[in-house]
Amino acid sequence: MTPRRSAPAKLERFCKDVLRASGADAQSADAAARAMLHASLYGVDSHGVRLLPHYDRVIRGGRVNGAPNMAFQRTSGAAGLLNADDAHGARAGYAAVDHVCDLAAEQGIGAVGIRNSSHFGAAGAYAVAITQRGMMGVVFCNSDSFVRLHDGAARFHGTNPIAVAVPTGEEHPWLLDMATSAVPYNRVQLYKSLGRELPDHTASDASGRDTRDPEDADMLAPLGGEFGFKGAGLAGMVEIFSAVLTGMRLSAEILPMPGPDFSTPREMGAFVMALDPNAFAGGEAVRDGMTRYLTALRASPARDGCTVMAPGDREWAEAARRRREGVPVDPDTAAEFDRLAEEEGIVPPFD
Amino acid sequence: MTPRRSAPAKLERFCKDVLRASGADAQSADAAARAMLHASLYGVDSHGVRLLPHYDRVIRGGRVNGAPNMAFQRTSGAAGLLNADDAHGARAGYAAVDHVCDLAAEQGIGAVGIRNSSHFGAAGAYAVAITQRGMMGVVFCNSDSFVRLHDGAARFHGTNPIAVAVPTGEEHPWLLDMATSAVPYNRVQLYKSLGRELPDHTASDASGRDTRDPEDADMLAPLGGEFGFKGAGLAGMVEIFSAVLTGMRLSAEILPMPGPDFSTPREMGAFVMALDPNAFAGGEAVRDGMTRYLTALRASPARDGCTVMAPGDREWAEAARRRREGVPVDPDTAAEFDRLAEEEGIVPPFD
Repeated sequence: MTPRRSAPAKLERFCKDVLRASGADAQSADAAARAMLHASLYGVDSHGVRLLPHYDRVIRGGRVNGAPNMAFQRTSGAAGLLNADDAHGARAGYAAVDHVCDLAAEQGIGAVGIRNSSHFGAAGAYAVAITQRGMMGVVFCNSDSFVRLHDGAARFHGTNPIAVAVPTGEEHPWLLDMATSAVPYNRVQLYKSLGRELPDHTASDASGRDTRDPEDADMLAPLGGEFGFKGAGLAGMVEIFSAVLTGMRLSAEILPMPGPDFSTPREMGAFVMALDPNAFAGGEAVRDGMTRYLTALRASPARDGCTVMAPGDREWAEAARRRREGVPVDPDTAAEFDRLAEEEGIVPPFD
Repeated sequence: MTPRRSAPAKLERFCKDVLRASGADAQSADAAARAMLHASLYGVDSHGVRLLPHYDRVIRGGRVNGAPNMAFQRTSGAAGLLNADDAHGARAGYAAVDHVCDLAAEQGIGAVGIRNSSHFGAAGAYAVAITQRGMMGVVFCNSDSFVRLHDGAARFHGTNPIAVAVPTGEEHPWLLDMATSAVPYNRVQLYKSLGRELPDHTASDASGRDTRDPEDADMLAPLGGEFGFKGAGLAGMVEIFSAVLTGMRLSAEILPMPGPDFSTPREMGAFVMALDPNAFAGGEAVRDGMTRYLTALRASPARDGCTVMAPGDREWAEAARRRREGVPVDPDTAAEFDRLAEEEGIVPPFD
């Protein structure tokens, strides 16, 4: 079945309406919809509107507090802790963005550890939001353990993303938003449904042995193949900043995202940081430097038949296409949307 | 020829004596020797005492200012710029460590951009120094361009390391110190001398095509193999923090480390950051969290015949061995040491 398509504005409105009906307050519904639309526009469908039925379920179940009473404690001049009161991860994430940008505007840099949050969505959404205030953003979060250690034979780290965004003189920021595993877990699921072999060094069976058969894949490999100690080290960095620095759960300690318990809060942490270019070489110098860097990068010779791209370039092009043609919604998700629309008397996002 | 061995204290004294004779002031000689010994003890020989003859040469040539008049400007409450006055990279690096630790002690987090520095040595040396003041350290620097972009066919980024260190309740910190290329350049040189094939996806010929023949290797591949856009993105992050945020040279713009010009300063940047655990979950909670994390990591099942390790574990073991058995000094370097000892009337580090 081909996916149905929906205009971004309609999808965002639909997400908000559904989450309001689930019990989310306006700020939580807005934040969750904004983060999902970031992912859905930029082609990161695993973190896009596909998550709406899940979010509906966890708010109704009580795992996520739809109307949190979040508390920010400025622990030091440029640092703080945000107790998210079991908020939706996006509600906590965007609130932390506001705090770190305020801190960085005043102190040059600001960092906030998020406590008592839940599924974070696409970390890049918050890094990009930081650039919209003229700052450089760094965002980490840990997540359900799916990734073995280098030479490991058990799930240990989450796919623990690193997201970094930097303002440029262009329309879009420079954006790196990457899992520290070789591939995301949904790639394995996709290849399973397509009957395709996985690339080398991306997944392992239950004994930790590499497998290219998605049916045998029990865990993901850390980024780096033979040099997977680097990917595992980066995942550890994300784990430490997200969970240890905040006193929250390690990836292997987090209650599983897919349940069956949808009522117990997951006590997840995350780490958000902003840097003000004006406290370093200066806003204009950094923009000029980014132009010089990106110009050199895009002019760097490519291998035969290939193109070199800056991180984010593929995503901005995909976003432009989806703004024109609509966001594809896979058949399972579209069916869930129809159900949610009918149950709550909400206008569906499809024409 | 087998390497000669030298006790760490003798090597450090020899390095200092040579650099003082080259024209370095006491602080510069101490800093450079300390950074080289960090690498030589922990088995990172590419950044160890092998560099001493090079450092002697660049201080004598004028590229590196052996007696810099460095200036720290606190640009904001928690951020600053260190103009290193063309100092040795280690002199600049350890000075930045002091500044970021002071800032973090006061503000919870502190970041310093280094300007007008030179070859940085092992970035991990400075990250570890930050943990010696009870802080978490993050250190980036860019370097001579050796690494192609993903799908690129030209040298673009440096091996651009990421170093992160975190205090633990144990003797040693958690330490990640990794190049964002698949392998370091000296691995290619080593395999060339051994007549060995390189691992897949580590190096390319001059057209950007992967090669396993070290004789054909013209550039390194970014970390990640098929997913090299991740390694290239991480290299970009390091480049932006080191060079763009500080207004210094991009990797491709840096005068080559091996000359022939040894008199022109290289105008290199770097980025150093410290976080105080007390401004987040608290020093004791973070130490306890690190213990919980490391205990779980070391107990995580390994693949048949393998061991799982935390980043740094291999290095601490190697340091213990080298403290007992001495640091191996390769024959070429040992010959240079004999020459330097004779020319300057300095006691050589060998018995």
